[in-house]
Amino acid sequence: MLVAGTTRTAEIEGISAAGADSDLLVHTPSADAEILTYGEPIRAPVVPVSPSGCPTPAVVTRAVRELIGLDVTVVDGGLAEPTGAPTVTVGARPGDDVREQDPVSTAPGVLAAAREFGRAVPDDEVYLAETIPGGTTTAFGVLRALGETPTVSSSLPENPLELKQEVVRDGLTASSLEPGDAAGDPADALRRMGDPVLATITGLLVGLVEGDTAVTLAGGTQLLAAAALARHAGVETTLRLATTSFVAGDESVDLETAARALNVDLTVTDPGFENRDHPAMDAYVAGEAKEGVGMGGALALADAAGVPMEDVRERIVTVYDRLLDGRDPAEPQP
Amino acid sequence: MLVAGTTRTAEIEGISAAGADSDLLVHTPSADAEILTYGEPIRAPVVPVSPSGCPTPAVVTRAVRELIGLDVTVVDGGLAEPTGAPTVTVGARPGDDVREQDPVSTAPGVLAAAREFGRAVPDDEVYLAETIPGGTTTAFGVLRALGETPTVSSSLPENPLELKQEVVRDGLTASSLEPGDAAGDPADALRRMGDPVLATITGLLVGLVEGDTAVTLAGGTQLLAAAALARHAGVETTLRLATTSFVAGDESVDLETAARALNVDLTVTDPGFENRDHPAMDAYVAGEAKEGVGMGGALALADAAGVPMEDVRERIVTVYDRLLDGRDPAEPQP
Repeated sequence: MLVAGTTRTAEIEGISAAGADSDLLVHTPSADAEILTYGEPIRAPVVPVSPSGCPTPAVVTRAVRELIGLDVTVVDGGLAEPTGAPTVTVGARPGDDVREQDPVSTAPGVLAAAREFGRAVPDDEVYLAETIPGGTTTAFGVLRALGETPTVSSSLPENPLELKQEVVRDGLTASSLEPGDAAGDPADALRRMGDPVLATITGLLVGLVEGDTAVTLAGGTQLLAAAALARHAGVETTLRLATTSFVAGDESVDLETAARALNVDLTVTDPGFENRDHPAMDAYVAGEAKEGVGMGGALALADAAGVPMEDVRERIVTVYDRLLDGRDPAEPQP
Repeated sequence: MLVAGTTRTAEIEGISAAGADSDLLVHTPSADAEILTYGEPIRAPVVPVSPSGCPTPAVVTRAVRELIGLDVTVVDGGLAEPTGAPTVTVGARPGDDVREQDPVSTAPGVLAAAREFGRAVPDDEVYLAETIPGGTTTAFGVLRALGETPTVSSSLPENPLELKQEVVRDGLTASSLEPGDAAGDPADALRRMGDPVLATITGLLVGLVEGDTAVTLAGGTQLLAAAALARHAGVETTLRLATTSFVAGDESVDLETAARALNVDLTVTDPGFENRDHPAMDAYVAGEAKEGVGMGGALALADAAGVPMEDVRERIVTVYDRLLDGRDPAEPQP
């Protein structure tokens, strides 16, 4: 289950690498949903790449999907641009900049609708994933509002932690909040300092747990923030997070300690990208992107299905070539 | 590909059997989309049944899906109530009563967006299906506006053709149209006399043909109206329609002649419901429902896959029992 949406927080210079430039960032979640669903963008005008050309982790998740046949449900977590992927609606709208006073006014309604949907989903097992440029910054903000120690990674090789701190400080001031003021009130934390994707994921997570669906959080520190929000919503069962070796190896975060503090079991999967010299993988080895679109969960599922990582890498090349086909990844696609 | 939506034309007393009463009709397309996607309604408050208790044809299409594993994409063709099924958006809004002057003002935009989406869909083959209570009446209206001979079936055992004629006559007057005035102008015919599902299907059909995707119209006379609209939009290739023996056997329509006039190849599949005495099937034998939610296309696919109709009937019982589970089908579900 992929939650795709936007926050204008991503427009702050230097916050996100989830698009070739800030004008294209807004298309990334719509394009990611299409790549996961169809194997290529069909309405979105871009293939999401970082400014250096690192392709979206949707390529990895799609590659695994082609190998082991995962079902996909995309939930609209505040898309700002149309997507050709079918989406479930829970009332999310694009999020504003967290430095505004009320950036996610739909958060309470989204939490309720996503929770109800999660409870009703008849599946036995769900992996929850996200795509939202700027999402680690809003995760940081939410964790501060809850009074938790922020542990957030970055799609950039150098985590711009000072910038995130400054943005979050400004956001708290705009919302007249002190750190910890939203403890026990996930709706308020999400509304004042979060983003619509995190609100949707938190609602889904709570509802899926209530509906006795086995949930795995498929992602990095944004999904860990969802676990923290679920704890503040009263969820007590052990949770699971499946992420990549790139997040686990990020020196700017102590993932294990943060996961332990939230009673979250960790699965870390290494796709072995250093074994293959290819533009679809080199940037990950250099520390870009790291996670997103359920990449860590998809890799864990491939591993559990006995698919060798060499086959995953081979399929990643196939998906990448289909997407880019010799075109300059930084240019809008025709 | 299931297009699900609504028209207030369905609220006219005696027009549709696609709901236990006129208050529940509006939930039918949302529930059908969920039954097809999940095997049961998850957000919609009803299992759609006719006033006499005949279950929605979504039960049949779902049964086939469980047997042969069809991929499903639901397109929002103007839903009036939320659905838990993921949907693609093409800008459709619920349609008004065709006796209004401009009941489907979104038709031109929907046609364009659906066409663009259809052209971009990467699938090799698509079956196009509908769920919209009141849809045969709006199909009647569109055919009159185009100047074609209306050939429309009904979800009721006795086709209320006189009522449909009266409604369409009033609609043409409200729109200041004479029969044939919209010949060659499918957007105008759909806007003045149609419904948003038919607009969406027509756009998809034209786009899929342009994108070299093999299309089968999976349904009855509403889908035949889509073929007529595509002809007026300039589509010249042979089209295919897969429907049920219940539509083919409807004495109020001459399906074969109508199909031949439009250069549409017919596939008719008989699910053999008379061989099994069960509430999920008896009403079809008595002439209710007949088609919808791609039932005829699903039966054709099951047949082509070599699945015996006995197995289809057995699975229909399973899906029906899961849905109704001893409850009174005419009551809103908890």
